[in-house]
Amino acid sequence: MMTGSHFQIISSSNQVMKTIDVCLSPELLHLYKLEDRTVVVVDILRATSCMVTAFAHGAERIVPFASQEECLQMKTRGYITSGERDGKKVEGFDKGNSPFEYMGFEVAGKKIAFTTTNGTQAIEKSKSAREIIIGSFLNLSSITKYLLFSHNNILVVCAGWKGKVNLEDTLFAGALVERLKNHIEPDCDAPLAAQRLYNLAKDNMVEFLSTSSHVKRLQRLNIQKDIEFCLTPDQYTVIPKLVRGELVC
Amino acid sequence: MMTGSHFQIISSSNQVMKTIDVCLSPELLHLYKLEDRTVVVVDILRATSCMVTAFAHGAERIVPFASQEECLQMKTRGYITSGERDGKKVEGFDKGNSPFEYMGFEVAGKKIAFTTTNGTQAIEKSKSAREIIIGSFLNLSSITKYLLFSHNNILVVCAGWKGKVNLEDTLFAGALVERLKNHIEPDCDAPLAAQRLYNLAKDNMVEFLSTSSHVKRLQRLNIQKDIEFCLTPDQYTVIPKLVRGELVC
Repeated sequence: MMTGSHFQIISSSNQVMKTIDVCLSPELLHLYKLEDRTVVVVDILRATSCMVTAFAHGAERIVPFASQEECLQMKTRGYITSGERDGKKVEGFDKGNSPFEYMGFEVAGKKIAFTTTNGTQAIEKSKSAREIIIGSFLNLSSITKYLLFSHNNILVVCAGWKGKVNLEDTLFAGALVERLKNHIEPDCDAPLAAQRLYNLAKDNMVEFLSTSSHVKRLQRLNIQKDIEFCLTPDQYTVIPKLVRGELVC
Repeated sequence: MMTGSHFQIISSSNQVMKTIDVCLSPELLHLYKLEDRTVVVVDILRATSCMVTAFAHGAERIVPFASQEECLQMKTRGYITSGERDGKKVEGFDKGNSPFEYMGFEVAGKKIAFTTTNGTQAIEKSKSAREIIIGSFLNLSSITKYLLFSHNNILVVCAGWKGKVNLEDTLFAGALVERLKNHIEPDCDAPLAAQRLYNLAKDNMVEFLSTSSHVKRLQRLNIQKDIEFCLTPDQYTVIPKLVRGELVC
């Protein structure tokens, strides 16, 4: 009898099939063995949406920082510095956390040092993973295709908000589970819950999320345009990947 | 601008309204301030369902234990000993974790020492709360009514499975959020997600949960009857409460 919480799914040819699990908050990461997994870090509103946008507009690399001070120091090395806390740009940084700030020509060929409340912390905490890629609705189909052909089990790491579960990252995780359902088995209840929520929400995600705490928080900052953009699938095809501590495409 | 993750909801009379939040796993408890809250601990399959059943059949008190050894020692003090790990009764204990074991006359007037994989651990981790009560579908309406008239903010603590989020505890939390929605405001996204899932599932919870990892785990133990019973609302009215480390009614 299986007593553990980890199911191994055996296909009809007796090959062990890939599984997908969802870590709803970085505070739960210690429950997962990461070394054999491809981790997809997601912070829909708005860190990973910004990162994907920046790469789609030609950024050369993005270095994620947990610490504001270390991030800011990168200015002296010619980096664009991006800093967000509590949804707002931190004073002294070049850019904040709106994807619209990363669509201009000034990003092409540049290196960016990036620190945010949640997303960059989630990347930091996932560092023992075999592989880390950056997901958002903006590159959803590319991420899906990538995972389909990857050999590793998958863990979607939702950045959440200061450790708490949020709806938008959960919906993204659910979108992946749903799109991969004919090939990759959900490994636990979190992917099942995320999938169910995504299927409820997918035809009108903006409306579904209108009551979410982080959307309300951002609406106070007057960025409805950001919210709608970040929820729009498949604007870009880039797949940022962490290589020796830096994101590249 | 509100930057914290905690919203204070002001009613039209400028009184601060009560809020309800949901801690989807005991591993997230450190994110919550418990001292001003009523905590509802829930472990639907099957610890809190057993506890409610035992009290409904006249148990005098239930002492939750995280440790198997300490729990077993209570036998010498005349306690019924109940021990479960990985869904099965632990050898040497009088009873396991099936609510049907607590429906006989032998429970009436007795003291029970109880240790389980998840539920009793969740109670232990919640001990700094102002108040802890025990919830299950079996006493759902009584719990709802109790919370309606309580003065404290509410936190539903889902026992989960070895730290991971599970569907059945989340559904219970969602049931509470849904039933209290006209009076008590969800405090974050976890209650919103739970509520949405509950509304999806409520007309056929057994079927909804048939793909959940813990249900599959328990089905291997051949206890479909337990699952169906534990998902049946309002069999009992008792509200177990923790008083000086012991559950009483």
